[in-house]
Amino acid sequence: MLELDVHRLRCAYGDGSLTASDVIAAVYDRLEARDGDAVWISVVPRHEALARARELDARSRRDRDALPLFGLPFSVKDCIDVAGMQTTAGCPDFAYTAGTTNLAVARALDAGAILVGKTNLDQFATGLAGVRTPYGVARNPFDADLIPGGSSSGAAVSVASGQVAFAFGTDTGGSGRVPAGFNNIVGLKPTLGLLSRTGMTGACRSLETVSIFARTAASALMVLDVCTARDPDDAYGRSPPESATPEFRHGMPFTFAVPSQSQLQFFANGDAEALFDDARRTLKHMGGMEVSVDYAPFLAVNDLLFNGPWVAERLVSIGSFIRERPHSVHPVTREVILGAEKYTAADFARAMYRLKEFQVRIAEVFDAIDVMVVPTAGTVYRISEVETDPITLNANLGYYTNFVNFLDLAAVAVPNGFLPGGLPMGITIIGPAFSDAYLAGLAGAFHDRRGVPRGAAALAGSAGFEPSTSRR
Amino acid sequence: MLELDVHRLRCAYGDGSLTASDVIAAVYDRLEARDGDAVWISVVPRHEALARARELDARSRRDRDALPLFGLPFSVKDCIDVAGMQTTAGCPDFAYTAGTTNLAVARALDAGAILVGKTNLDQFATGLAGVRTPYGVARNPFDADLIPGGSSSGAAVSVASGQVAFAFGTDTGGSGRVPAGFNNIVGLKPTLGLLSRTGMTGACRSLETVSIFARTAASALMVLDVCTARDPDDAYGRSPPESATPEFRHGMPFTFAVPSQSQLQFFANGDAEALFDDARRTLKHMGGMEVSVDYAPFLAVNDLLFNGPWVAERLVSIGSFIRERPHSVHPVTREVILGAEKYTAADFARAMYRLKEFQVRIAEVFDAIDVMVVPTAGTVYRISEVETDPITLNANLGYYTNFVNFLDLAAVAVPNGFLPGGLPMGITIIGPAFSDAYLAGLAGAFHDRRGVPRGAAALAGSAGFEPSTSRR
Repeated sequence: MLELDVHRLRCAYGDGSLTASDVIAAVYDRLEARDGDAVWISVVPRHEALARARELDARSRRDRDALPLFGLPFSVKDCIDVAGMQTTAGCPDFAYTAGTTNLAVARALDAGAILVGKTNLDQFATGLAGVRTPYGVARNPFDADLIPGGSSSGAAVSVASGQVAFAFGTDTGGSGRVPAGFNNIVGLKPTLGLLSRTGMTGACRSLETVSIFARTAASALMVLDVCTARDPDDAYGRSPPESATPEFRHGMPFTFAVPSQSQLQFFANGDAEALFDDARRTLKHMGGMEVSVDYAPFLAVNDLLFNGPWVAERLVSIGSFIRERPHSVHPVTREVILGAEKYTAADFARAMYRLKEFQVRIAEVFDAIDVMVVPTAGTVYRISEVETDPITLNANLGYYTNFVNFLDLAAVAVPNGFLPGGLPMGITIIGPAFSDAYLAGLAGAFHDRRGVPRGAAALAGSAGFEPSTSRR
Repeated sequence: MLELDVHRLRCAYGDGSLTASDVIAAVYDRLEARDGDAVWISVVPRHEALARARELDARSRRDRDALPLFGLPFSVKDCIDVAGMQTTAGCPDFAYTAGTTNLAVARALDAGAILVGKTNLDQFATGLAGVRTPYGVARNPFDADLIPGGSSSGAAVSVASGQVAFAFGTDTGGSGRVPAGFNNIVGLKPTLGLLSRTGMTGACRSLETVSIFARTAASALMVLDVCTARDPDDAYGRSPPESATPEFRHGMPFTFAVPSQSQLQFFANGDAEALFDDARRTLKHMGGMEVSVDYAPFLAVNDLLFNGPWVAERLVSIGSFIRERPHSVHPVTREVILGAEKYTAADFARAMYRLKEFQVRIAEVFDAIDVMVVPTAGTVYRISEVETDPITLNANLGYYTNFVNFLDLAAVAVPNGFLPGGLPMGITIIGPAFSDAYLAGLAGAFHDRRGVPRGAAALAGSAGFEPSTSRR
């Protein structure tokens, strides 16, 4: 049985044991079998995806080898534009047909990847639970009563349930990490500016990035490397410096910071705490030296994202739509975003000063460590719980994630194991801007060491493929 | 006759032909002779300054040589704190006695400089003409009917009229450059973050710097080097990178950009235009290659400073004072600053995006050139003209200055010669962050080449000193 994994698929394509057409046919079988899982807002028709797969299969060996993402099925979060397809941003009345394709997505297509469809999300990418959507809650493959995590809910489930090899999500306050944790997959939140944000309905233009979900950190990093491109239309775009952080290698010693014991917060979930303690022990066995840091400044930065004038960035993106069509918008999303109307320009300037002060303080913390390690989320909630208390529980889910983009950090969320009830939990490894490759290397080494099964394969019993009988 | 110039004074102190006490006594004689020139808001009593000079003179040769600013009289713009003295920011009702000394000023004192007093300014450092002050308009030494330039009006006049060897001003939108131009002196606007802004009543905390006025660019640079220090309390503070721009050396070829001919604006002052053309010729003779740039994006950035939500930064500094004591504030200043109350947080976020776009476009311009050269101001106005039309004419004075801090550039305003009526005009040489030494070197070479008399010495006939008869 072959996992729907970037590297394994590449090997199978390379030795001719699988064709892209085999994989796409199997992907659509599985997709149809999972009809009703609310992963997709729109799907590329099977015949179109198959035609694309056949066209790729028909290329010469040399041409195929030159395509680093050859034959890899992938999904795109439905706030990112793909030319000719609708972008809904999770709001049917907001939908428009995109004229161009986001550059990161275009690069994946150019590299031979095969688009399967656009995925469900918290409306306007605002939320961390994955329940603020009129398209149904994307079904968590481990327990349908539990939240899938958001806002990239469909993206994460599409990977975990073996419907694609990788997925594009987005991440402003944790949307590329929290759902990775609840789906037992990797969520790579790249350094801001590496992936283009032109052609997307943004949440916070100064703080947002396209993110990548995959079954392994190495796969996610490979997609990042292929899709990184300086977009002249994205003023916040950046090129990596010539001397980037070196890659992590097995056995390399490292220093990891963890919030001080009293500041770790598992929201009364002792099993999640025990699992995080296991991760710390594993990191130490790997050569990591743990140091404790004061988490208070990080929490203060978290506060800026939703409890203050910074929500005005969301007002810039979609405020006029919400004011014109208030009833088209999820009531919680509407309340959160219109809440920013009360803030003045002076409030924003004040918040900018406050942020700057924390940026300086926290940069000093990172000068003394290699990475910071936190639970991806402190606990998990039932869908019904979040619907009863949508603001507080959502904020709890961001306890370890909100600050990251404000501080220009990169992060990789990686599986850490399972709670006694069988739900997966993850840790997130956080480093300075442009440390993406180092973080992915360390996350991959941790993932291997923990030995947790990948995605929802073990449960779903359907995440692999029999080798193709059609050989060339 | 010896000029009150940093380098010449150092030589005279070195060879014993002058003592600090000689200089301070002469400075106070001159200061008293010029009583009523509205340069000073507060003056250190003569006996205190003389006691300080005598204490310095009494030190050993070795100790004196170790003080790079030994015996140099200087002034501090009255929005910058000096412990134990009042800070008025140009508003008597706002005045407070400072508890600490701004770090840049403290470093000057530690280096042996002698404080003479606190200088007049446009109230709350808001203005470029130097007339928005209840302390009288600092008298332009070349023509008392003309504006001195602002907001660092007293600072510039204190240097030009030979009352100090250097002066600390501030610069947000041009306050460290425009008055240098109208006073025939050098104004160095350092890279943001090199000089501490803790202990000052700021205009725009994210955009403001302490600046330096002196008779030559080399003197200003020397003061900058001595006073540069990373202030842990100033979140916007920065250290220069290890590989800074190389210094300019005579004969070194360079590329300088000038706004395209149709975008140069002299506000119908043909003499000023001819003088600027002379400067361009001189720069070419020096080995400069002139290129023309589209000035439209620079003007768009200028617009952000006063015609939009960025004024809210001034509201943060002093909005609550103005609202509590509206009649304590200059009516134009009040109107300008309270005008920002109408802007929302979303407006500020939008302006931030717009700025970011221009920053990227203009960074590309600077990638292709060494420096940009503009008139320090396009023309000069009579005090009566500015009082009749305080907003438009003020904006005209910022035509070549407002954008600089928004784009994280450094600049040196340097004398360029005199209009037929005898009023001096300058040019400003602008470069990327941390090019301060290069800019000062190029400005110094230009200054030498133009051969214009320094300060107001030629007119005032009193800017030098006879060598002291007291030798040691």
